[in-house]
Amino acid sequence: MEKPVSAFVPGHMTGFFSAHPNDDPTKAGSRGAGVAVADGVTVRLEAGNGLELNGEPTAIEAVERVLDALRSTARVVVETDLPLGAGFGVSGAAALGTALATNAVFGHGLSENELVTIAHGAEVQAGTGLGDVVAQARGGVPIRLEPGAPAHGAMDGVPTHGTIEYVSFGELSTEEIISGETTELTAAGRRGLAGLVEEPTVDTFMEASRRFAREADLLTPKVREVIADVSDAGGEAAMAMLGETVFSIGTGLSDAGYDAERSEICLAGSHLQ
Amino acid sequence: MEKPVSAFVPGHMTGFFSAHPNDDPTKAGSRGAGVAVADGVTVRLEAGNGLELNGEPTAIEAVERVLDALRSTARVVVETDLPLGAGFGVSGAAALGTALATNAVFGHGLSENELVTIAHGAEVQAGTGLGDVVAQARGGVPIRLEPGAPAHGAMDGVPTHGTIEYVSFGELSTEEIISGETTELTAAGRRGLAGLVEEPTVDTFMEASRRFAREADLLTPKVREVIADVSDAGGEAAMAMLGETVFSIGTGLSDAGYDAERSEICLAGSHLQ
Repeated sequence: MEKPVSAFVPGHMTGFFSAHPNDDPTKAGSRGAGVAVADGVTVRLEAGNGLELNGEPTAIEAVERVLDALRSTARVVVETDLPLGAGFGVSGAAALGTALATNAVFGHGLSENELVTIAHGAEVQAGTGLGDVVAQARGGVPIRLEPGAPAHGAMDGVPTHGTIEYVSFGELSTEEIISGETTELTAAGRRGLAGLVEEPTVDTFMEASRRFAREADLLTPKVREVIADVSDAGGEAAMAMLGETVFSIGTGLSDAGYDAERSEICLAGSHLQ
Repeated sequence: MEKPVSAFVPGHMTGFFSAHPNDDPTKAGSRGAGVAVADGVTVRLEAGNGLELNGEPTAIEAVERVLDALRSTARVVVETDLPLGAGFGVSGAAALGTALATNAVFGHGLSENELVTIAHGAEVQAGTGLGDVVAQARGGVPIRLEPGAPAHGAMDGVPTHGTIEYVSFGELSTEEIISGETTELTAAGRRGLAGLVEEPTVDTFMEASRRFAREADLLTPKVREVIADVSDAGGEAAMAMLGETVFSIGTGLSDAGYDAERSEICLAGSHLQ
């Protein structure tokens, strides 16, 4: 028997960003940079309707919008080990996975860019994210040079690979922060991007991310403490936007004594499996 | 001890293309579509100079041009199980792998787009390829919508995954064909791309590739026979541009009785490892 179609979408932790709203959801988005991790979200479809997240009935507006855009009805089964609302882009991943799986199951014949565009637009309209979907589609350490879906946005990447660790202490509301006053955040994000474009290395990315969290006043006391501990132990850590989550390149968190999840940078980006 | 840096670049088989020369090598390139395969090329650097391909001293002009562009001196060690000159883009892969490895080893601090641009330009100037490098960097089933390096080109992809097979009967000279009269070839490639953009599915890609090989008059008697045999066995096969090589989606070649190499579509694209 053929294996049923499912889609995998990596988690994505943004290190710094600037928000770029636009009335056209395919032009709205963010600039910034982050890391795609091999811990991610799988999505498969069943007959019926509604959404199930790790076995529990749940509503994810971005997923509903994807199904509407594709004029398809299905029960969406989402599974993930990633913490929710903690800066891993789970809603965007569920939306992108739904787009990929729905296209495959119903034979819509859409391209990867078209499916990313639908998922990105759904996520923007749901107000739950601005840049995770395009980053998750790409994989690696994506730099979002220009905001928006593939037809409008532009991306690059920091060439690297290997281990990444993360530890999460709880949720922060992306919706609240990206719908609020973002002038200072956007200025800090622009500075981060200018620095990273000048020197696109992992060290610059981590340093820019730490500075961004500080300048945009997003550090919680716990996150500040963990980043300092990793630094004292000789490692590099930063905060995932937007969650009470710290990530380190390599084994920085466990070297500093934290019980961190260990994963890899996900090079492939989202894909059917 | 830390593992020495090496770069992996997938093989890439083009199904159809149109050639777009330009005096600026970053704008020159091809439109078309192909498949990245998990069988590829690894590149590592040693002290010294010169190039070694599977243990033998060899010259690959595109690799030399990459080292020159990066003002670096090293011995480049290239290993691959792919057949040479047979439509897998080994020269482009060696150039891109050299760019990634050199950047990592010498700490040049360049981005992925910048490294792809250097390797693409080197390959174009060497006259050995027009579109493999950007496709190998991306992975999957890349569609080259616009020719050129990342700043000028545009890409999309056919959403798919899974097994791919290939069998190779010998070399064809890319250099001879892309430097010759390409009017009919380019017209056939444009038709292929228009069809695939209309319906970006694997079936359309394979059909467009077969039609292209026929219309551009590139089929050799052996390739024609193998494609027909796979078709008779209920499968789908096409010719790799430019080599005397046939590839099939899934197990089409072995189902038709051929002793084919079996690999996977490479989703990750080129990367450090």
